[in-house]
This record gives sequence, C-alpha cells and structure tokens, in this order.
Amino acid sequence: MTLNAKPKHAPLIATSQAMHFAQVLPLQSGASLRDYTLAFETYGSLNADRSNAVLVCHALNASHHVAGVYEGQAKSEGWWDNMIGPGKPVDTNHFFVIGVNNLGSCFGSTGPMHTNPDTGKVYGADFPVVTVEDWVNAQALLLDRLGIQQLAAVLGGSLGGMQALSWTLQHPERVRHAVVVASAPNLTAENIAFNEVARRAIVTDPDFHGGHFYQHGVVPQRGLRIARMVGHITYLSDDVMNEKFGRKLRPASVAQAAGLALGVSTSDGDTRDYLYTTQDVEFQIESYLRYQGDKFSEYFDANTYLLITRALDYFDPARTYGGNLSAAFARTAAKFLLVSFTTDWRFSPERSREMVQALLDNQRDVSYAEIDAPHGHDAFLLDDARYMNVMRAYFARISSELTSGNASHSAQPALAAHTGGAA
Amino acid sequence: MTLNAKPKHAPLIATSQAMHFAQVLPLQSGASLRDYTLAFETYGSLNADRSNAVLVCHALNASHHVAGVYEGQAKSEGWWDNMIGPGKPVDTNHFFVIGVNNLGSCFGSTGPMHTNPDTGKVYGADFPVVTVEDWVNAQALLLDRLGIQQLAAVLGGSLGGMQALSWTLQHPERVRHAVVVASAPNLTAENIAFNEVARRAIVTDPDFHGGHFYQHGVVPQRGLRIARMVGHITYLSDDVMNEKFGRKLRPASVAQAAGLALGVSTSDGDTRDYLYTTQDVEFQIESYLRYQGDKFSEYFDANTYLLITRALDYFDPARTYGGNLSAAFARTAAKFLLVSFTTDWRFSPERSREMVQALLDNQRDVSYAEIDAPHGHDAFLLDDARYMNVMRAYFARISSELTSGNASHSAQPALAAHTGGAA
Repeated sequence: MTLNAKPKHAPLIATSQAMHFAQVLPLQSGASLRDYTLAFETYGSLNADRSNAVLVCHALNASHHVAGVYEGQAKSEGWWDNMIGPGKPVDTNHFFVIGVNNLGSCFGSTGPMHTNPDTGKVYGADFPVVTVEDWVNAQALLLDRLGIQQLAAVLGGSLGGMQALSWTLQHPERVRHAVVVASAPNLTAENIAFNEVARRAIVTDPDFHGGHFYQHGVVPQRGLRIARMVGHITYLSDDVMNEKFGRKLRPASVAQAAGLALGVSTSDGDTRDYLYTTQDVEFQIESYLRYQGDKFSEYFDANTYLLITRALDYFDPARTYGGNLSAAFARTAAKFLLVSFTTDWRFSPERSREMVQALLDNQRDVSYAEIDAPHGHDAFLLDDARYMNVMRAYFARISSELTSGNASHSAQPALAAHTGGAA
Repeated sequence: MTLNAKPKHAPLIATSQAMHFAQVLPLQSGASLRDYTLAFETYGSLNADRSNAVLVCHALNASHHVAGVYEGQAKSEGWWDNMIGPGKPVDTNHFFVIGVNNLGSCFGSTGPMHTNPDTGKVYGADFPVVTVEDWVNAQALLLDRLGIQQLAAVLGGSLGGMQALSWTLQHPERVRHAVVVASAPNLTAENIAFNEVARRAIVTDPDFHGGHFYQHGVVPQRGLRIARMVGHITYLSDDVMNEKFGRKLRPASVAQAAGLALGVSTSDGDTRDYLYTTQDVEFQIESYLRYQGDKFSEYFDANTYLLITRALDYFDPARTYGGNLSAAFARTAAKFLLVSFTTDWRFSPERSREMVQALLDNQRDVSYAEIDAPHGHDAFLLDDARYMNVMRAYFARISSELTSGNASHSAQPALAAHTGGAA
C-alpha cells in the first residue's frame, strides 16, 4: 500500500490500487459475485498497532479517489480533498485513510462493464443488484487483506453515510466511530420517485438496449443526461439556485455561454429580450443543467446509475424491525457524529434527528451538528467553516484517543449521550 | 351559448363550443396567429346587464372543460367540477362561468397538431411560442364575441392564476375581481429547471423528430412519460407522498397492481421481500408514477407540453419594471383574493405573500388565505373544507355586489386593504 511520508501540507499524491478477490461474495439478493476487484486508494500511514484507519465511503457518482492528486495531474483532486489530507479536518498526518470504489460502480471496481466469469460476456444489465450491506461486506474483506481489524472511524456523506451507518450494524465490533453526514436511515417516497424518473429515462432510452448497450457500441446518453439533470436539481437548494441563477437569461453571446458553470455571472443576462424558444436555451439554469448532463453522460455508466440508485432505495435497516429504528440500532456499539444541513431537502435534518433519537434511545455516545448552510445537499462537499470545524474537532477527538492509548473498542456503550455540535 | 336553466344541484351538462377568429392575433414574440379557433364551454346564464361572467383559466394539462359532464358520459366531470356548478363555491345559479382552452393546447383550440394556414402543413414545432399575455388577449377577444365587456371575476390556479393576474394588468378595466390560487408572480430557478428536464426528455426522444413527429406517425411517449413523472412529483408534497406511498412495496400480485392509483393500499406491500430489481417496479410510488406517465403519454401533445411549460417560464410581469412587483401592479384596478397552500413547494405561500405585499403597496383591496393543507400544489384541485369555504365566501361577496347593483368597476381603488382569509 502507498504510505505517504511527505511533510505536512505538501500536496498529497494519490495512487490508485486494486485488490482481487477470487472467492465468492454472497449478496443480499441471494445472488453472488466471484473473481471481483476492488479499486482503492490510501493516504497517510497505518500506525504500529493498526488502530488509525479511517474508511471513507462514497456516494452516487464518486469513487475511491477521495483525496490528493495523481502524479503530474494538478487538477485531479479527489472528491473530498477539502476534507481529507495533511492538516485537513481528517488529517492524514494522523490517520491512515482508505477510499474504496464500490462494486457495481464504474471507476475501477468490478461493475457492469466488466466480464462475467460465469459467461465470458460483459455483465451489462446482468450485473447483480448490490446493496449498501453488500458494499460494506466487500469493504470488510478489503480491510481484512489490509490487516485492519478495527477502524478508528468510518466516514461518509449521503449514500456514503448510509454505508457508515451500516458498518455499525453489520460489523459493530470493527468500528470505533461512525461519521454520518447529510444522510438518512432510508429514502422517502419522494427520493425514490426522483430515482425512478432517472432510471426510467435511462432504461427507455433506445440506446440502452435492455442494459446491453456495450455490444451495440452506443451509450444511452440521453437518459443519463436527464438523470443527471434531475439529480442536480435535488442536490441544490431552491435558495442557492435562485441566488446563483435566478431568472437570469443566457447571455446573447451564446457560444461563450455554452460552457457556463455554476456561479458564472453575465453582463447581459438580465436585460436582453426573450428569444421565445421552446427548444433552445433561454435561462442560465437551463445552460447549467444541460452542461452538467452532457459532462456526466460522457463518463458515467448507465447500468451503474441503475444499481447505485437502487442501493439507495433499498437501504432501510429498520425494515426488519417493523420500522423501529431504535430497535435496529440496538446492535450498534460505535460512537457517532451526525451532521446535517438546514437547506438539504433530499436528506433533511429531520432524517438525521431520527437517527440521533434512535441512538439516544440506545444510550449511545452521539454528537449531532445541524449546520445552517444555504447549499442544499451539496453542502456536504463544500467548505462551510462551521461544518469543517465540527469535523476537525471530532477527528481531533478520535486522534487524541489514539495517542492516549484509549483507542480500543468499548464493549460497554457510553452512558453519557450528548447532542449538539462538537465544535 | 349554452344557458343552463336546470334546478339547483342538478347535474350540469356541459357542451363544448368553438369560436373561429379569422383576424390576425399579434403575439408577444413578434410572431402572429390567424384563422384560429378557441374551444370553450359556458355554465349558468349571463344576466341582463352582462355583469355576472366569471372566466376560468386553466393550468398546464387542463382544458376548457371546467365543470359538469358531457351528455351521457357520467364520468366526464370537468377538472374543477368540485368548485364550479349549481350550489358550488362558484355557483352557476348566480354566475355565467366560461372555460376556455388556450392557444397551443391540445384540447380543441388551435395548437401544434393543427394546420398552419400559411403553409398548409401541420404546425408541429413551428407553432409560435405563446405567452400568458397572448392567452389573455385571445380570451379577451372571445369575451368581445360573447358580448361581455367586464368580468365579475377571473379565476385560476397555478398557471391559471398567472392568467388571472395578467388580466388585471393587461385589461384592468375589464376585471372586477381576480382570484389567484396557488400561483406566483414568476417561476423560481428550480421550477424552470424542472420544466427544462421535462422538455429535454421530450425533445431528445428520437420519436420527437424535431417536433414534426405527426408526419412520422409516432409520438414521443417516452419523453412525455418522463415529463409527467417529474411533474407529478412536484405537484405532491413530500408529506402526502410519504403518507400515501411511503416505502410500501408493490404487492406480489403484480398484475393487479399495474393500475394502482393514488391512495390504494395493499395488504402485502409492507412485508414481502425485495425483488432486487433495477428495471422492474419495486415500490408503489414507482407503480403510481409509471401509471400516470403512461396515461398522460397517450393523450397529451408533446409540442403543447413544450409551449405551456415555456409560457410558465416566461411569465414575469415585474421584468419590465426591473423586478419591482409593486411598480408592475400599479396598473391593477381589480379586487383580489389570493390563496396558497402551506405544503405547496412548487408555488409556495411565500410567492403569494409577495403578490399580496405588492398589491398592498398599491393600496388594493386584497384578501389572502394561506390554507394549512398537506397535499402540496395539487391542493388547489382538492376538497379542503377551509379552502372551499374561503372560495364560497368570496364568490358570495361578488354575487352580493351583483344583486346590490354595486357591480360596476370602481375606478378609485379601495383604500381599505385587508389580509386574512375571507372565510
């Protein structure tokens, strides 16, 4: 594995690695996978007693490239590079951080575009349905290989937060802290509905070919674009969309505007006359969404999109407890930090509070920060100072447990549960 | 015109009518329409001094068939039949109610599927962009033909409310009361974004053929389905979706469930195991959305969808006043009732309050009711008792002005502006 021994604050150089697993991985659906690969990256150094590992779980369209840049590629920052690295809130001078790409994804781990060893053909739509629980089990096998018995922390936002939560339920003895950001104990009907719109757009694209488009040499880009546009709307708050775009028109210099990115303002977009068009871009928000859709459709796999949205839909640890989240959480033994953002309507603070309450019902050690941020769900990836401070303080606490030698897992859950920001 | 002289509470029989206009209608875009037809219906009787007419404007997918049923078709109720009819809040024993289908729609008035008199070919995507203002001008010409100089009231919800509002700006002397329900002075970026997703789904459907699909004998049903699914999500509140569907699974008896409608509950939907599928229906909310999408794609015209969502996007009466809604509303002379619904996140109460404030700034006579209803935007079509009472009371006031002979337009705006429900 890559051990970074560079001085503090130096650019972190990331190296993508791969681990092959020949054995059969049983899946929640009853199906299984074998001969699969997990792509992963590590940052920082594993300490002598192997107690400083932090696993970072990714959300819908991210990967194992969590932090740092690839050698010679200055603009290849990992998706959570603002959070993780030397001197950053999750400080790789203290922690050995692991990012792993999930099964079914399209960034290196085995997924629908790979060959099914049973048939010799590309999986395509035949790739088995994978769940959050399956991903966690695969991640656990990777940790076994890396010689890590217990995580100092498991950390994730959104769907990544669901994985962090699931770790504390599937492998309670292997997690000391779980940091669950902008997440939920399950999706609401509205969220499932948005996922279903995205899936229908992909599946009904004639270029989808029932999920076997690879052999036709095409990609269902139309469907992927719609999926991404829907996604983007739900990641942002109404407020931030109004602030960034409002009713601004695309500037008359259309060519220049074709690559409009979030936050680019224009001089003539407020005052020019309408074009009176139904198919061309009129408003800046349209330009932004089309651009995001186009970009996404060029790199993301359509079958992966179906699989990952389905994993979101299916996650519901309280389901086998008749919907009783407190009962479901009784098996947890970790300490928790939960973070939510006031304008996140996809994974609202209310959903985090449900989890806090269920943990308190079990007298777990839980910290909770509800961050007043305007950016909607996307806030979990952005540089809000209060959010960063909460994360920094919590990971400093974990780090201090490491140095004080108090890093072994407490079999006895802490009795003093407390809420409120850790900062 | 049809004059209904039936006893109170008898079923209202509706008759669709059509009025042809040979003259040129100049449009806001600079284009024009000629040789066009407006489909309309009327209910109740016009009184001797022609002072009791109420114009009802429709929203995205509705029509001129506002109330009553067609002869021999018991299930053909108009889309606002709960609101309008003998003994109903808008009582056709007192009012002469007019429903009109807007230009560009697909229910009888001239639209994209009709023949362009200039070319002899079907308009398709060449149908000119029409705006709320254009619709109001066309409606005014219809009223001229019907011999109605001044409306007792103009009434509409959502996009229909925008038309009611626009009437008070374009023809202030012709409107005594404007009833604007679940509407807004313009769309937010988020609403434009949802419209754009729907339009892109339609336009990028290979069966759209640039809007000239009629001549190919196909319909872009895939796009229409996606458009409708997105629409349905935004018409409902998160709360009502959770209450009606939540995370319920489609019952195992799949065939029976294929026609699942809103509110149908099932016995086995909560407990059966997941099917682990990415393309088949798993959750009831998916079944509901697919059903709504399928139905819609069988009757709604794709070009009409583009035109009507664009009319929504473009409406912004404050735009020519630098965004100053109070300045824009200075030309109004009508009295107003505005109604909003607490869980409507598409046309939120905040947007209605903006309008109330701008009217108060101009010392207009305005009543405002913010109804605590769980149903989201759809609430404006449903039977909430408080909402119905507010509407009934306000129309009773209009009716009493008619009988007291106080129905002429006050050139002097009322000084006593008041807010709060009229009930």
